[in-house]
Amino acid sequence: MRKVFQADLQQIGEELIEMSRLVATAMERAYESFANADIELAQEVIGEDAKIDFLQNQLDERAIDVLALQGPVASDLRMIVGSLRMSASLERMGDLARHVAQLARLRFPQQVVPDSIAPTFQAMAELDIAIAGKVGELLDSRDLAVAREIIELNTKIDELHVSIFKAVASPEWSHSGPMTADVTLTSRYLERFGDHGVSVARKVSYLVTGEWDPDITVF
Amino acid sequence: MRKVFQADLQQIGEELIEMSRLVATAMERAYESFANADIELAQEVIGEDAKIDFLQNQLDERAIDVLALQGPVASDLRMIVGSLRMSASLERMGDLARHVAQLARLRFPQQVVPDSIAPTFQAMAELDIAIAGKVGELLDSRDLAVAREIIELNTKIDELHVSIFKAVASPEWSHSGPMTADVTLTSRYLERFGDHGVSVARKVSYLVTGEWDPDITVF
Repeated sequence: MRKVFQADLQQIGEELIEMSRLVATAMERAYESFANADIELAQEVIGEDAKIDFLQNQLDERAIDVLALQGPVASDLRMIVGSLRMSASLERMGDLARHVAQLARLRFPQQVVPDSIAPTFQAMAELDIAIAGKVGELLDSRDLAVAREIIELNTKIDELHVSIFKAVASPEWSHSGPMTADVTLTSRYLERFGDHGVSVARKVSYLVTGEWDPDITVF
Repeated sequence: MRKVFQADLQQIGEELIEMSRLVATAMERAYESFANADIELAQEVIGEDAKIDFLQNQLDERAIDVLALQGPVASDLRMIVGSLRMSASLERMGDLARHVAQLARLRFPQQVVPDSIAPTFQAMAELDIAIAGKVGELLDSRDLAVAREIIELNTKIDELHVSIFKAVASPEWSHSGPMTADVTLTSRYLERFGDHGVSVARKVSYLVTGEWDPDITVF
């Protein structure tokens, strides 16, 4: 029984890592479609989000089966419940990558954002992809130094997010209403993606230490 | 044992209803602070969000205790796991109300949005408050007709959300970059609040019928 249980736990852990890989790829491809106004790629990313949703459902069903059949307690129980939370965060990261691709599709063949803003979004997307990669690494290693790295990467995203609003508020900003709205939404999507990565990092940290780390907070 | 378990389930159900009440009030007061540029009220709403977070933590801890001590299976187990998901949606609705109040605080003493847009946001906020009220009713009654009403209210929010983007894209739109960004974010917050209400409605519907209702979808 115990052996089956350990195999289940390991399977759930691997599915979380697989989800983190898929969302890293989703954001990488979504941003590529966005930056290059590549509608075929955008369509692919949008279609492939279903795979992430499917994986979440599969993981959640497995977790519920483990709860029903194995009746875990203490840290094992918290691990399973934590997995349900983490799969929800990862699924949401997939949605946000999809939203970026949907903006690319909506504005095709135009670019979504002005050239002056593109490098900032490029940097935010790269930080998001790095965070998704680190989330996989953290889930695998449970090394809390990686959790700290995720927080630091997310702090940089927040700074870039603020810089976008400063650019929109500057006297030089002369872009149209729709472009300003698209810039605002893109910045929000890229910023929220990082926040969900931090949520996973907090959860792993809690599961490892048994305590919420006050330095790992997300708003 | 069985009696204790039923009392626990009932307690969790009541806490969910209490959360739905708090988020309805939070959105009502947040929108009031936003519409009237009332910074004291905005501050109160922002401060009171901690109460919703606290209630979520309490509910989640209770759910984990029930899983550990009672080892529920079948529909009871799904109810508990579903409660964890619903508490997360409700907590997020509280965050979104807080974001609306934060915009009011950020722009004080100015109004956040132009007069021409205010009635649309007013209507969206009223629909949000109605959804939060219906969520409480649904959690209490498990009457799936109420779930349908929630979906219909949310469809109206989505239409208003689209109308905001049309207004921003119209030739008459001449507002500043920051105001356009604020309008975009406000619309997004009000729209997401409704989506989370639909998530709860879907979850209750699933728990009652054992099936996902294809008419109750949220993107």
